[in-house]
Amino acid sequence: MKMKNKKKALITGGAGFVGSHLAARLMGEGWRVTVIDNLSYGRKAFLAPLLNKPGFFFVQGDLLQPAVLRRVLNASYDTVFHLAANSDIPKGARNPRWDFDQETVVTFHVLEAMRNARVKKMVFASTSAVYGETFLKPIREEYGPLCPISFYGAGKLACEGLISAFVHNFGFQAWVFRFGNVIGEHATHGAMFDFVRRLRNDPRVLPVLGDGKQAKPYLYVEDCVDGMLFGRKTCRAPLNLLNLTPSGATTVRHIAEWTIQSMGLRHSRMRFSGGDRGWRGDVPQVRLDGSKLKKLGWVPRLSSDDAVKLGIRRHLEELGWRG
Amino acid sequence: MKMKNKKKALITGGAGFVGSHLAARLMGEGWRVTVIDNLSYGRKAFLAPLLNKPGFFFVQGDLLQPAVLRRVLNASYDTVFHLAANSDIPKGARNPRWDFDQETVVTFHVLEAMRNARVKKMVFASTSAVYGETFLKPIREEYGPLCPISFYGAGKLACEGLISAFVHNFGFQAWVFRFGNVIGEHATHGAMFDFVRRLRNDPRVLPVLGDGKQAKPYLYVEDCVDGMLFGRKTCRAPLNLLNLTPSGATTVRHIAEWTIQSMGLRHSRMRFSGGDRGWRGDVPQVRLDGSKLKKLGWVPRLSSDDAVKLGIRRHLEELGWRG
Repeated sequence: MKMKNKKKALITGGAGFVGSHLAARLMGEGWRVTVIDNLSYGRKAFLAPLLNKPGFFFVQGDLLQPAVLRRVLNASYDTVFHLAANSDIPKGARNPRWDFDQETVVTFHVLEAMRNARVKKMVFASTSAVYGETFLKPIREEYGPLCPISFYGAGKLACEGLISAFVHNFGFQAWVFRFGNVIGEHATHGAMFDFVRRLRNDPRVLPVLGDGKQAKPYLYVEDCVDGMLFGRKTCRAPLNLLNLTPSGATTVRHIAEWTIQSMGLRHSRMRFSGGDRGWRGDVPQVRLDGSKLKKLGWVPRLSSDDAVKLGIRRHLEELGWRG
Repeated sequence: MKMKNKKKALITGGAGFVGSHLAARLMGEGWRVTVIDNLSYGRKAFLAPLLNKPGFFFVQGDLLQPAVLRRVLNASYDTVFHLAANSDIPKGARNPRWDFDQETVVTFHVLEAMRNARVKKMVFASTSAVYGETFLKPIREEYGPLCPISFYGAGKLACEGLISAFVHNFGFQAWVFRFGNVIGEHATHGAMFDFVRRLRNDPRVLPVLGDGKQAKPYLYVEDCVDGMLFGRKTCRAPLNLLNLTPSGATTVRHIAEWTIQSMGLRHSRMRFSGGDRGWRGDVPQVRLDGSKLKKLGWVPRLSSDDAVKLGIRRHLEELGWRG
């Protein structure tokens, strides 16, 4: 049977924003895909086109319970794409337990389940937040010291350390992608997402956290998935640390302006809360050096600004918004 | 009452090797000291001179149970010296859960207990193992990328990330000391400790892991404690990352030779297991740059070689060894 020769992937958090795109892409490339998701942020609807396809499996389960993984994972899997995490970063500052459980503890469970099932390849969704406060210079993967300021960044750094030790001690191979902000259909968080929600509630005034000068690189979700698969195929070291990012960055003020424009709301005005950052744990200026993947032949299709503009349009289409 | 004006310290792992020296030193400087220890590696005997002194308290408890900390910690404490950890590094390669629990989970509990009790200063015993495989160049605190190869290093890196986020989000102040190997009275692990034990069992042949060329900086335990207290007093940043190390390094072959000599065993011969390292997760060549503390006016009293020589003599005295 042809099905038996197909590569198998497990995607944790596969009903979420990035995970649902990755699932569709892998299915399109002929993989068999199992998604585990607790549907805390993810939605089964994001996987609707896949649910009845042969070779696709959806498991609703909480990765804090290791039994779920023991039931699902076995040696027939080629790669675990570990994307499950708390994606609501400001939330961590209110209760550090959230990120500790959802990043650090869950990742330990996933790695241990892989070891027990003899699955040794992991693609990991990490974050530029591991770098902490970094200012305007584009950051390379070798940057140090790593002093994360959010519990999200601290959690992901803990995961990276664990992955590194599993690679060294148990012959794992891993691709750790440090994303900038990701944007596009199925987004469940982020500045653009919040702006649209707020403007639907009250189109007169758009409250914007910080002074609007915060600027980060935005990566379109399809580029994000494409970059992960390119890196996994191309980079052959046991442990591969890779920034996944467009060059440049987009200010929060621009995201707000373009959201207002795209919604056709001519009379909305922005009200900035002031200060250099959006919340405690927010890194206001992020610039990532993407030259490691670029030298290998990969660049994102969209610039940061274009990713934001397209992300806003697509999000409004998803909502059926008519300005 | 005079007692009330004394500063209070909590030392986790305070019945262990470094912790027991720190407890004695702080008591000598007029602090009130509470030690929490589960006595897994620590021994109450190490604290014998302190146990009946006013202002000293010993609590036997397991930090995996957060209730212990809730009972002990309150706002009257000035600083938590968090030294509790798994100190048997090779053990982690057999079961990663060990380091995950004893470093990462325990540190999260300690930080959360501090937050709840409004205690905001932490001195943390980290390790050069966070740097991973680093070769011969002395490593500065800004080194990256951080790819630990032991679960001990991965656990300590996770703790450092957590501490960084607590500093940023909750106004903590922290001193993170990345030690080289520590040696001296009350040692419970390490090459010298193993060599003495093996030679007592069989003085004819001393099995030595690796090729004997592995070399690391050894810090005498009194220098270690002195450096921590100097750093805590002198460094005023919210988060202070500090290597704590002598310059230079001592080879495993020298430790073995000096142990044999000090035990008066003229006919022992060494048998090397071969390979460049002692065990999976061992970093064979460690050199740490201690210039950050040096510039502030602190250097260890003993060189690495002298620390090892004194450590062997003192350990044999502890055992009452007569060659």
